[in-house]
Amino acid sequence: MTETYSGLMKEKTFVFPLRVYYSDTDAGGVVYYANYLTFAEKARTEMIRLFGWEHRTAMESAEKQAFVVRHCEIDYRRSAKLDDLLEIHTMVTKIKGASMNMEQRIQLDGKDIVVLSVKLACITMDGKPARIPVVLRDKLLPYVKCK
Amino acid sequence: MTETYSGLMKEKTFVFPLRVYYSDTDAGGVVYYANYLTFAEKARTEMIRLFGWEHRTAMESAEKQAFVVRHCEIDYRRSAKLDDLLEIHTMVTKIKGASMNMEQRIQLDGKDIVVLSVKLACITMDGKPARIPVVLRDKLLPYVKCK
Amino acid sequence: MTETYSGLMKEKTFVFPLRVYYSDTDAGGVVYYANYLTFAEKARTEMIRLFGWEHRTAMESAEKQAFVVRHCEIDYRRSAKLDDLLEIHTMVTKIKGASMNMEQRIQLDGKDIVVLSVKLACITMDGKPARIPVVLRDKLLPYVKCK
Amino acid sequence: MTETYSGLMKEKTFVFPLRVYYSDTDAGGVVYYANYLTFAEKARTEMIRLFGWEHRTAMESAEKQAFVVRHCEIDYRRSAKLDDLLEIHTMVTKIKGASMNMEQRIQLDGKDIVVLSVKLACITMDGKPARIPVVLRDKLLPYVKCK
Repeated sequence: MTETYSGLMKEKTFVFPLRVYYSDTDAGGVVYYANYLTFAEKARTEMIRLFGWEHRTAMESAEKQAFVVRHCEIDYRRSAKLDDLLEIHTMVTKIKGASMNMEQRIQLDGKDIVVLSVKLACITMDGKPARIPVVLRDKLLPYVKCK
Repeated sequence: MTETYSGLMKEKTFVFPLRVYYSDTDAGGVVYYANYLTFAEKARTEMIRLFGWEHRTAMESAEKQAFVVRHCEIDYRRSAKLDDLLEIHTMVTKIKGASMNMEQRIQLDGKDIVVLSVKLACITMDGKPARIPVVLRDKLLPYVKCK
Repeated sequence: MTETYSGLMKEKTFVFPLRVYYSDTDAGGVVYYANYLTFAEKARTEMIRLFGWEHRTAMESAEKQAFVVRHCEIDYRRSAKLDDLLEIHTMVTKIKGASMNMEQRIQLDGKDIVVLSVKLACITMDGKPARIPVVLRDKLLPYVKCK
Repeated sequence: MTETYSGLMKEKTFVFPLRVYYSDTDAGGVVYYANYLTFAEKARTEMIRLFGWEHRTAMESAEKQAFVVRHCEIDYRRSAKLDDLLEIHTMVTKIKGASMNMEQRIQLDGKDIVVLSVKLACITMDGKPARIPVVLRDKLLPYVKCK
């Protein structure tokens, strides 16, 4: 029986394992290009869950807050295939009052195959900018890795 | 330039054309099995849009209503592939106060490849059963095709 | 740090944990109905991986074999939401030469929310029926749970 | 009955209409961020189909060619919602021997909501760079819109 984990911090990097299933692939035999963004979102979700943020709780709170992606740059270097066990390395590279930047490296066998730079904004559910809650920001700050 | 349509009624059947794209397929080279349910949902949405129902309007109305699938049976006979142009044939087979049944036949070159039987319920957004609005029910009734 | 597992056998049932992410949900605020089939496929994949079958290896072998779903019945009882941690209980209920049946119960807090009956066929990549490899069949047989 | 089209050229821009369905949205009530890449891919596919390229035919030909995305930059400005009818404006901004660049503007009510810059490479199915077929390149060249 295989044991795995839903992610852990290694120094300033959050490492999240992710298996490639049929639903992630396309007729080219590899992971469909949009699905790497889905993988990256799962990793970010688990990273901030580790720091106490849960999307649904935040959405249903009085503040009704959520994180949304404002900008994303993706470099596709190699392809992942069915049954591959990937590792997603996520780092916070900048954190401001209402937004933060992350760099995410999707790896196979220790090599980067897809690299993402993501800019996230904190908003209220009606789309207005909101400050990142101080309690989350304070927990993330020691892990910010300037580039 | 190709011209197409977002669906039309042929007697009691709603016919909806649908192209297969990369995102619909998997590494087996065919449409991923769950995506036929997505195709079927698009056809149902366009069918009831033709009869004046729009999901978002219904959701944001005072009644906050939506249709949800309660039961679904799917028979997979043949596979659809990338670039195939499918036709989805949808019939209402029963309509009651708060639910209705549909049969949906996904066709390629005039042959059924996947056949679905779907039971839909009308609910309020907090999950309680709701009556199908009379105005929609009255429009659908002449098209019910008993089996 | 949370620890989890990619599934384990409890008597004759394969139990697979699965977290609900944004990508699994829809504007109704719950898991999109087709995505339960994706969840179920992940559970089946991990179950037969435990018994030595890996899709890609089988596909790239001399026999070029794969499992496909021939028939599926789904009963939707309650909805799963963002951040829910589900458990998928999978049982083989019948195994024949070239096909097998599975029952899958998707649970939240120990209660069935979605129940699937799935008939799978073993085929070659050109779509012809194929015998389930004896080595896999022999390993699965002791776990068949007749209903 | 609504009539639509699967895309047309307006001067040097390919305009492709696309309806937002439940499966495209997430629990935030808007289109899931990765799905704009799926929308964009459908538009590119229809654009080059207009110029005589069909993915499956190219994949199954002697040359076994396909286009893959090498780099993608996405600017998310506003959100699309359930039932929105979007228009995707696609322009080829550069074409070289084995790659091309496209700019894609996803519009709602005539305003850009998501803007993508995509770099595509032509490859053989085993991942090696391949020249864009002359017949396709010659047809696209008059439509290249330098920025």
